[in-house]
Amino acid sequence: MTELADATAEERSTQINPFSDSRVLVTGGLGFIGSNLAMKLVELGARVTIVDSGNPKGGANDYNIVPIRDRITLIDADIGNCDNLSGIVNESQFIFDLAAQVSHLESMASPRLDLEMNCAAHLELLEAIRKSAANPKLVYTGSRVQYGRITRLPVREDHPIDPVDNNGISKHAYEQYCLLYHRTYGVRASSLRITNTYGPRNVMRHARQGFVNWFVRLAIDSQPIEIFGDGTQKREYSYVDDVVDACLRCATIDNTNGNAYNVGGFPSSVLDVAKTLTELKPGTKIIFRPFPEERKPIEIGDYYSDYTRLSESTGWKPTTPLKEGLRRTIEFYETSKKHYW
Amino acid sequence: MTELADATAEERSTQINPFSDSRVLVTGGLGFIGSNLAMKLVELGARVTIVDSGNPKGGANDYNIVPIRDRITLIDADIGNCDNLSGIVNESQFIFDLAAQVSHLESMASPRLDLEMNCAAHLELLEAIRKSAANPKLVYTGSRVQYGRITRLPVREDHPIDPVDNNGISKHAYEQYCLLYHRTYGVRASSLRITNTYGPRNVMRHARQGFVNWFVRLAIDSQPIEIFGDGTQKREYSYVDDVVDACLRCATIDNTNGNAYNVGGFPSSVLDVAKTLTELKPGTKIIFRPFPEERKPIEIGDYYSDYTRLSESTGWKPTTPLKEGLRRTIEFYETSKKHYW
Repeated sequence: MTELADATAEERSTQINPFSDSRVLVTGGLGFIGSNLAMKLVELGARVTIVDSGNPKGGANDYNIVPIRDRITLIDADIGNCDNLSGIVNESQFIFDLAAQVSHLESMASPRLDLEMNCAAHLELLEAIRKSAANPKLVYTGSRVQYGRITRLPVREDHPIDPVDNNGISKHAYEQYCLLYHRTYGVRASSLRITNTYGPRNVMRHARQGFVNWFVRLAIDSQPIEIFGDGTQKREYSYVDDVVDACLRCATIDNTNGNAYNVGGFPSSVLDVAKTLTELKPGTKIIFRPFPEERKPIEIGDYYSDYTRLSESTGWKPTTPLKEGLRRTIEFYETSKKHYW
Repeated sequence: MTELADATAEERSTQINPFSDSRVLVTGGLGFIGSNLAMKLVELGARVTIVDSGNPKGGANDYNIVPIRDRITLIDADIGNCDNLSGIVNESQFIFDLAAQVSHLESMASPRLDLEMNCAAHLELLEAIRKSAANPKLVYTGSRVQYGRITRLPVREDHPIDPVDNNGISKHAYEQYCLLYHRTYGVRASSLRITNTYGPRNVMRHARQGFVNWFVRLAIDSQPIEIFGDGTQKREYSYVDDVVDACLRCATIDNTNGNAYNVGGFPSSVLDVAKTLTELKPGTKIIFRPFPEERKPIEIGDYYSDYTRLSESTGWKPTTPLKEGLRRTIEFYETSKKHYW
């Protein structure tokens, strides 16, 4: 699959590329990870259908898919209310279910909407897959927020599930449905629990969808980077291409069916992210602020995961170190700032 | 609280009865456990409001509350769509959230509806409680189905959560919301994970809401009791009065806030239940049948729980042995058969 991730035209025409001429559905394909995934799939020769409600709050941005716009089918719909969903599912060999409400704070403000967007609506898709004779492979992107309070590090997949926000509950419930549908009906479903993902095509208008991207914006704008607390809390960071690679590997390897996997990254402190940005954008200032009250309940302290299970099943490992990922991220936004700011 | 469970008029007038003159909301109060609880609360002098959508599929039966009909307020509404819910919540000191879709098979047939009924709708109540200055105590009735596949017996509350049906996922998700709202907002919420409950006021028209009650009906009707498999799988059985007692204790003891508890019962095999019925209703026949295909995926094998946590926190233990509970159950339905058959 490393070959796949760097596939050339010649490779795409051979048997080693299972996506060549395949039909693929990507939900949330106008969003951050979804659009990066869709672009890679098109590059690999897949015929991609995107279902996306176009909600900018969820990260949808038409500009994200400009490079592939004339080579994909775009359906403007919520996955919970999509005409002919069963027809689309029946034609698909691979389904990547990435549509989500990803803001922790919004999940607390509107819990029922969060549950609808992250779980109830997706049951329409899961039911369509269950009923489909084609039995397409489903890759769902779960999240580290499912774990919530961390009691041991690094976090393995059997760590207790104890969410500290509504987002974690709704994401986990849908993962449980996916894995249950595998056991009960043979649906070929896997879940990837992703962590702080950053890179091109993310939401840059506010800080609520990943602080790494927000720090990048501040650095590009020559604004000071504000750190809550002392910044020593450890997190791990995944460059979006590494997450896309995990999705592709998981999709093509059937021993992943019925399992949930951590998609790990490179652990380092929040302060280290800021410092790396000061190296890449000299002159960037760092300011320390007290932790805002409303964020305290969802602050989980250190987090980094053990991704051995995914490595053993698929050979995946993260390949883009933080500094290189941040360099590429800055480069992307500096040339396309007007579409994201 | 043993005193409470057997309260006399004199005791109700003293300080030891926290329900005396208290305002109490019971969701699902027309149903099996809800109506038994409401009757006990009225007996203890509480002013009870029942919110119930009256869905017979959920177990609602007007006859269940005939003895207390003129002493309670009945609101015909779904908890997810109830006028003036915040007003009702603001006036309540105790809230028992029992409304549920409890059929495993129906949860598989209509997963989105099951999620709506067991989780999404209840978020309206939880949000109303969060916003209420009165900070009422919330007791939610979870279920053993949350555990799903059993890996060690007896099942303690820290057993892995691995549901084998949609019902287990939706029930567990709402429990997670309840406990999260305790940690995040200080909502005084507890969850009681109840097991096979039987007794007066249950649904008797089909076998989908508890096989013990169904066996009772067959025995009363002089029909043979059909057992799937050899009947040696072990379950535990809770007489409804014991479950009501657990609810009342949990409501009045604040160290239960933020916790989930097993409400255990008396373990014995499915076959033993049938045999006990043949003793109570001589002439009852037992027939063995192969396990139906559609039930195999949700058959979890042996189940019995460790209820030490609840005993230590509240002093609760089950007090009605199986034979005595079955005797009372038979007695109830033999005199009120026409309202349940």
